[in-house]
This record gives sequence, structure tokens and C-alpha cells, in this order.
Amino acid sequence: MNQEFHRQEGNIEGTGFLPGLAIDTVIFGFHDGQLKVLLLEYKNTGLYALPGGFVHDDEDVNEAARRVLQNRTALNNIYLEQFYVFGDYSRYDPTPLKAIMKARGYSPPANHWLLKRFVSVGYYALVDFTRAIPAPDEISDSCNWYNLHELPALMQDHQQIINKALETLQRDLDRKLIGFNLMTEEFTMGDLQSLYETILNKKLIRAAFQRKMLGLGILERVAKKWTGGAHKAPYLYKFASNKTMVDKS
Amino acid sequence: MNQEFHRQEGNIEGTGFLPGLAIDTVIFGFHDGQLKVLLLEYKNTGLYALPGGFVHDDEDVNEAARRVLQNRTALNNIYLEQFYVFGDYSRYDPTPLKAIMKARGYSPPANHWLLKRFVSVGYYALVDFTRAIPAPDEISDSCNWYNLHELPALMQDHQQIINKALETLQRDLDRKLIGFNLMTEEFTMGDLQSLYETILNKKLIRAAFQRKMLGLGILERVAKKWTGGAHKAPYLYKFASNKTMVDKS
Repeated sequence: MNQEFHRQEGNIEGTGFLPGLAIDTVIFGFHDGQLKVLLLEYKNTGLYALPGGFVHDDEDVNEAARRVLQNRTALNNIYLEQFYVFGDYSRYDPTPLKAIMKARGYSPPANHWLLKRFVSVGYYALVDFTRAIPAPDEISDSCNWYNLHELPALMQDHQQIINKALETLQRDLDRKLIGFNLMTEEFTMGDLQSLYETILNKKLIRAAFQRKMLGLGILERVAKKWTGGAHKAPYLYKFASNKTMVDKS
Repeated sequence: MNQEFHRQEGNIEGTGFLPGLAIDTVIFGFHDGQLKVLLLEYKNTGLYALPGGFVHDDEDVNEAARRVLQNRTALNNIYLEQFYVFGDYSRYDPTPLKAIMKARGYSPPANHWLLKRFVSVGYYALVDFTRAIPAPDEISDSCNWYNLHELPALMQDHQQIINKALETLQRDLDRKLIGFNLMTEEFTMGDLQSLYETILNKKLIRAAFQRKMLGLGILERVAKKWTGGAHKAPYLYKFASNKTMVDKS
């Protein structure tokens, strides 16, 4: 184990981390009408979990979220956004942590830092899962995309964390749309509607959807090119160049 | 000092609190075109601060926020909402905490729990300041409403916490409007516009504002009563009875 490992999530001793504070990341993946979530499986435990970790004692919490995601899944350059602090006392459950440590040949004392109560800061992102190829870290057997509606049982309150992240994503989709960078440069209203329907998990009425999207003022219609039988082709749109809609929070 | 005091914010020893985790509350007060913020002044220090505190080791973080606000300001039954976790390393500054403890006759050792790095969970609320009468706790000289645009210098990063809370309030006002419970039962479009203009700190165009508000689908026009010269009186509105718009997050 090298020096750097002492500050990574595989370090059982907990040196250099803020006590009691965790990070959990919910990475949604969209492509072609499918919505997935990124999960890790802890080695030899059958325990599925969100990619998570801890905060160095001299590190920004937001920076820790990026580092944790990269260390645990090999994904980087992903725009993570805080969405909620999971701080209920009832979420305190050291059992899975004991199992994870035991599977690594370690029998922790009852007062071990990893067995204490943690408050977790939740971050989420939405990416194209065909362009984000994850890899497990050294304490995980796997790191894969799972269909949102067919998830395995998850450890602790991770299913609730996903549910809350999904609510946030659904609520903020209009505002985050451009920042997510999920659409090709030019797209049809149908492409956009498919994204919304997948994330909202319901069918939308075409006319109302189009009216609402045009009302947001972030779309520009692309001039039609002459392509022979193109008189029946749908309009193409792109995001208005002077709009970013990227929330800086 | 009674038993209960050992678990309150005035307790310098820190027994029974989660380490390194703080709560800060930004309570906005609106009335009649004015927007204010609630601030405490620590005893004999001249240090102004947001009402804040810590989390008991067996308490939900959201519950701690309500308890902290009530203990420190005497305000209760206020709907607090998480809005951001302030976790930058650069916010770590034990100097004001030292001054506060010194003013209470206590010279803390350098490794005192209150002098360590804290990550703070920010909560905000919007109330009518004529209906929310604060009172200082035993470690504060005062607890008062201050005009948002005329605040005294605040300790640590509390001004930035207010700025971030205000951004959140401005962004989420449509969605939170009914839950804030700030309007009288019946109100004019002008009353509503005044609330928006005060919180957004800009003039709005009357026709566009009315169109937008009606488009939200949360307003019902109240049938006009015959009141003599009332043909020139503005329409009255109330919130549609089947809408709550209260975000449960």
C-alpha cells in the first residue's frame, strides 16, 4: 500500500478523513430511451452500493465527491451536483460495513470509525451511459450500469438515496437540460421528448410538450437543408447559443 | 446548568454532538415590500451570525435544524428546507469561535472540538416578519431582523451562506409559494407581484407577470362581490384549493 492509498476509500484506518461524513453519488445514465444507475458490488459480499466515500480533512466536500467518483468508478469530468443531506439517525446501520471489512480479512473493534454513525452528502449526475465506461476499484468486484427499474437490493438506505436523486432530476430537468450535455448538436423535438419521457417515466402529449419546450426559450430551430424528400422530415433544433442554463450552484 | 443544557448550543464541552457537523439557518422575513434576515449577536463580541448549532449524536439532521432554530431564536413551527452543504476547506476559521468562548471566560485548548473544521448544512425559510417575533438565547446579546441589503459584517462565511440561500429562494419561489403561507387568503395580482419583486429585487412587467402566474395553474379567481364602486377594483385571487405545491423534500 502506497502513501496515497492511506487517503483513499480502501484505507480501513480512516487516517486523514473527516469523521462521520460520507459522500454518496447517484450517476444516472441515459441512452436511447433507457435510464440506468451506476452501482458497485463490494468484494465477496454480494453487497450492492452507490459509489461513495469520505472527505479528506483538508479537502473541499465538492472536490471530495469528484475524487471519490473517479477513484471508485474510473469516471471523471462528470458534473456532480449536491442534492440532499441524508442525516436521519435511523439510517445508521454498521452491519454492511462490518461485512465488507470482514470480507477483506479485518475484524474491526466496535468503536471503529467506519462503524460509527455517518451523515451522507448526496450528489447526482446524468450522463450518456454509452460514453461513460466504468471500472471497479480494488475493493469492488464490479462497477456496472443497472436499469433503474430493475435494481438489485442495495445496502443501507441507498435505494432511498436513488429515489430522492430521481425526484430531484425530474424536478430540475428543464433547468439542467443544457448542462447535462446529453443531446447531439442538432436534435428533433421527438428526441427531446424521448429523453423527458424516459426520465419522467411517463408518456407526454406531443403538442403540450412542444409548447412547453419552446416556451423555455432555450431552443433554436435549425434552417432546413434541401434533402430531396425532406418536406416530411421533422424540424431540427439546437440549444440557443446565448443560453447556457447551466446552474452554477 | 441543567442536564438538558449539556445538549444545547451553549454547552462548550460538546458532549453528545456529532463532530465537525454544523447547522446554519437563513430565515428570510417578508412583509409589505421588505425582505429581512434574522441574525444573532454573540455576547460581548460584536460578532453577528446566522442562527446555528450542532446535531445530537442520536438526532436526525433535519430535526436538529428545527431544534437549533427554536433554541437560539425562540421561533418554532417554521418550515425549514435544506439548500446546500457548505464544505469548502477555505471556510475553516476558528478565530471567531475563540473570541466567542473567550467572551464567556473560557480559554479553549487548540484541539477543542469547536475549533476544528466544521462542514455546515444550510437550511432556509421564508416567513412574515411581523408574525415571527424572535428572542435571543443565553449566549446572544440580540436576535433581530435586519434588512437584507443593509446587513452588518457577518462572521465566517455567513454572508455567502445568505447569498446562496437567496439564490435558492429566488429560483424556487414558484414551487414553494403556497407552502410559504405568506399571502392573505385572498390577494390581488399586485400583492403577489410585490412579493416577487421584493424577493427578486427587480421590477417585473405587469402583463408578463400575470400571464406567468396564471400559467402556473395554482391561482383561482375569486367571484366579485358587489361593493358599490367596485367595478374598478382589481380581481382577487386565492390559491386553488386542490393545489398544495408544497414540496415534500
